[in-house]
Amino acid sequence: HLFDLCLLTCFLLDGTFKQRYLVADKHWQQPGGPILLYVGNEGDITWFCNNTGFMWEIAEELGAMLVFAEHRYYGESLPFGQDSYSDSKHLNYLTSEQALADFAVLIQNLKNTQPGAQHSPVIAIGGSYGGMLSAWFRMKYPNVVVGALAASAPIWQFPGMVPCGDFYKIVTQDFARSGYNCDTNIRKSWKAINNVSSTASGLQWLSEQFSLCTPLKTKNGIISFKGWLQETWVNLAMVDYPYEANFLQPLPRWPVQVVCKYLGFNSTVSDYQLLHGVSQAAKVYYNYTGSSSCLNMSESATSSLGWLGWTYQACTEMVMPMCTNGVQDMFEPEEWNFQVFSDECSAMFGVRPRADWAGTVYGGKDISSHSNIIFSNGGLDPWLAGGVTYNITDSLISIMIPEGAHHLDLRYSNDHDPPSVRAARALEVKYFQQWIRQATKTPQTSKT
Amino acid sequence: HLFDLCLLTCFLLDGTFKQRYLVADKHWQQPGGPILLYVGNEGDITWFCNNTGFMWEIAEELGAMLVFAEHRYYGESLPFGQDSYSDSKHLNYLTSEQALADFAVLIQNLKNTQPGAQHSPVIAIGGSYGGMLSAWFRMKYPNVVVGALAASAPIWQFPGMVPCGDFYKIVTQDFARSGYNCDTNIRKSWKAINNVSSTASGLQWLSEQFSLCTPLKTKNGIISFKGWLQETWVNLAMVDYPYEANFLQPLPRWPVQVVCKYLGFNSTVSDYQLLHGVSQAAKVYYNYTGSSSCLNMSESATSSLGWLGWTYQACTEMVMPMCTNGVQDMFEPEEWNFQVFSDECSAMFGVRPRADWAGTVYGGKDISSHSNIIFSNGGLDPWLAGGVTYNITDSLISIMIPEGAHHLDLRYSNDHDPPSVRAARALEVKYFQQWIRQATKTPQTSKT
Repeated sequence: HLFDLCLLTCFLLDGTFKQRYLVADKHWQQPGGPILLYVGNEGDITWFCNNTGFMWEIAEELGAMLVFAEHRYYGESLPFGQDSYSDSKHLNYLTSEQALADFAVLIQNLKNTQPGAQHSPVIAIGGSYGGMLSAWFRMKYPNVVVGALAASAPIWQFPGMVPCGDFYKIVTQDFARSGYNCDTNIRKSWKAINNVSSTASGLQWLSEQFSLCTPLKTKNGIISFKGWLQETWVNLAMVDYPYEANFLQPLPRWPVQVVCKYLGFNSTVSDYQLLHGVSQAAKVYYNYTGSSSCLNMSESATSSLGWLGWTYQACTEMVMPMCTNGVQDMFEPEEWNFQVFSDECSAMFGVRPRADWAGTVYGGKDISSHSNIIFSNGGLDPWLAGGVTYNITDSLISIMIPEGAHHLDLRYSNDHDPPSVRAARALEVKYFQQWIRQATKTPQTSKT
Repeated sequence: HLFDLCLLTCFLLDGTFKQRYLVADKHWQQPGGPILLYVGNEGDITWFCNNTGFMWEIAEELGAMLVFAEHRYYGESLPFGQDSYSDSKHLNYLTSEQALADFAVLIQNLKNTQPGAQHSPVIAIGGSYGGMLSAWFRMKYPNVVVGALAASAPIWQFPGMVPCGDFYKIVTQDFARSGYNCDTNIRKSWKAINNVSSTASGLQWLSEQFSLCTPLKTKNGIISFKGWLQETWVNLAMVDYPYEANFLQPLPRWPVQVVCKYLGFNSTVSDYQLLHGVSQAAKVYYNYTGSSSCLNMSESATSSLGWLGWTYQACTEMVMPMCTNGVQDMFEPEEWNFQVFSDECSAMFGVRPRADWAGTVYGGKDISSHSNIIFSNGGLDPWLAGGVTYNITDSLISIMIPEGAHHLDLRYSNDHDPPSVRAARALEVKYFQQWIRQATKTPQTSKT
């Protein structure tokens, strides 16, 4: 028999490391008041703390302590300090299972050391990868958390669970509904880039139009340029919020509509006209504040996100197939090729991804035996493609926010919030209160 | 037995190791017939295979495939071959979580590669530590196994969960009920040993009485001698089966009764008479077959058990507090001292135990949110002390076998079986059939 891979989970040998977490107990009603735990994802925890206003707004009503826990290998929680990313041996302890174990130990430690916290019911909250972790945390540690809110958590964006093309389909739909011909012209732009960039003068023109800090010179440069633009459209769809906000970048309200204002050409437009519009559109994302003297293709989102760490996780456990066909989406056709991906991972980190492991360890679509998890999804969010969009049981429930982008429900409330997100937050709080009541009726046994 | 010997290649860091497992599909009704998985514990899987007749006897009735999976670091499943135990760096991948991950990957791969197995419901079965693993396997991988039988599984024998003295209390009760003054005379024997061993001639007499391969010479020798005897009484209680059997050692039926025949003295007995009786009793355990020319204090049980590996696991995750007081038990008083234990572990392996981790990762007494686990316990089994002895929910149920020793229910049926174990096995099969029906009604989603 030749078989697939086994996961290796290790503790940090004999070493220890400092994990950062933030606590706010202003409204905590001790003893026994609930603890809302933000399950940190791939970035600096202070950034998530500042972008999860929902928790701050419900703390008083629930009499809850807020805890924001940083994920190992991100922010300041670096197990080996500056060496943490030096090679695959040091990176070997960066796994989602290890992160969950850290969170579990943190909570047990809080309960054993914080006066009045011993019987506090804990609710896990997270968005995106943090939402996946919060759902998995409830699945794997139901003794530690009484329930979980998994906001925009694509727990099914793994091999064999959802079609690899859905993600970019949703991006495309956002642009299609945000302005006349908007998706059509982006679909055209790739060929226009190929045409214009075929000459040296064209390359120079492109570089100037997009005010690139580093002018385009090579064919590979054009490939990364197109990849950078594709990532730009994806990010815009993710943060298509109904009000001015600064999540990945400072942006106006409904940024995709603003972008599409520059992309409303009819079919007679020339390549140069079209790409001029595209450059204007891109600058909405990269220079809304007008403070950028040039656009840096290596910066597509906030530096608070740990790009390298997430790339390593994608190269080990978090294998998320994506593909485009240029028909149902507005991008150049590209199939999902696991072997190519695996070879890139091997070249970058000396590791190869475990395509099936996430499904094995976290259950894939076979999660009906678990309980007390809310999966909230935004209709504008590309990550909806891998999300749980229907009720699995009466305690594994799905909440849809049609006008919502990436975990809009976790953000501070805003006058421009659509009714759907207000209703979602209200329902989420109702479930929190129900879980807290259940837990208080049957207090957990102390393990001290 | 008719089984295929198979090897699973697992990745370990950048290397691989072969995990051994045994398959018997003679009675398997494919497609979709159930798989009974024996979750291997700390020893050679063929030994557990031969001592789990229950599975062989129910295979035909259930149309089940039998799989016996070996636990990493035991038997022939040595990740680093002969170096696997060389130091803590090599031992670092010996954890129960890793073992569960191996089993999960094994099952997923069987389902993906064995024609007709893709939708086969899998039931985990195990005894002792293997029973703990089977319960934990259902808790952590409900997507992989539809239910679990945890036979004589002390999942609560961890710090803060049960009194540390209960284990030896049960050992003592077994001897108390198996013969006149039996526990009383064993309780007396420790002082008698101290008295007799205080002289050189007494030491020599002791060594001769017990036919020790290596004569006693030092004070430390006496301490290990008493420890060896204590372990002997514990093992006898564990294997106090109602028929002649060979589990830890070849023994007559109801061995504790046979042993107690030599320990029925009244209060007037002399130290030498008493210890002569003790030596006769010990020889029931060590020389029932009469084949041993001398007793080797370093051999107290079958070599099929991985003593060193289990000691390492006890020194890391599997911290099981034990204590005696000489009043409710028949042993010399000894408190549970974590620090002393931790120092011994540090000296032996260079590691220190994590006292609270098992409770955090496996839930301790807070397991009510899980389902489909049978905890069976024997009334004569010392490990009953750490077992689940009451129904937690209507699908986390406890089965008591008053006349049973250590996982008697997993053994081949025997004419001398008490009605309680026959009833237990019948009830276990009824639950298996119920879990299989449930699973067949709602087939698991294929993840291939």
